[in-house]
Amino acid sequence: MPSDAPAWSLHSRLKEDTIDIGDLPLCRVLVIKDANYPWLLLVPRRHEAVEIIDLDEVEQAQLIAEISRVARALKEIRPRPVWGAVPPLAQDAEEVQNFISALRRKIWLG
Amino acid sequence: MPSDAPAWSLHSRLKEDTIDIGDLPLCRVLVIKDANYPWLLLVPRRHEAVEIIDLDEVEQAQLIAEISRVARALKEIRPRPVWGAVPPLAQDAEEVQNFISALRRKIWLG
Repeated sequence: MPSDAPAWSLHSRLKEDTIDIGDLPLCRVLVIKDANYPWLLLVPRRHEAVEIIDLDEVEQAQLIAEISRVARALKEIRPRPVWGAVPPLAQDAEEVQNFISALRRKIWLG
Repeated sequence: MPSDAPAWSLHSRLKEDTIDIGDLPLCRVLVIKDANYPWLLLVPRRHEAVEIIDLDEVEQAQLIAEISRVARALKEIRPRPVWGAVPPLAQDAEEVQNFISALRRKIWLG
């Protein structure tokens, strides 16, 4: 990275809600402070990267490699799916239907 | 896909716990049946694909495109982070330290 490139910094919301595990070549690895879920976040240390497509192609490939590595580690330590730890809250039929309809419109026609 | 390729099918655990939203070119889009979290899953319709690296490079690029599309749709509908919907459960300090140590060993030295 050229020394005059804008510095990367972790979003304050993430800083508050997570514990820093360490850095991979591209991403900072974070765990959410919530004993219900072993949520891990991989945050690319790139200034103003918000979407995956804000990364260039080499970085996208690196992201996939890092996701695979972390996912494999997590699966060895905790081989259960992330949902189901807390009893699910019953969905309101109309609300979920609205959510799904809105998503469908955005995903397929958006 | 050649007609003699083994057929893809959705894992029974996923079938039980999710609602089918529809198919993108590579992935089936699912939403977890839990009103606490608007968890969306993208499952590549590829026989025995478990890790991202089980997909070939073209499929990996397609997966990234589909994740971006779905993430953007979800952000427009629900612009909050997925955690924080349910009050977090306080972490046991020793337990979280053990979890983090185990992860670190697996991720960096595994």
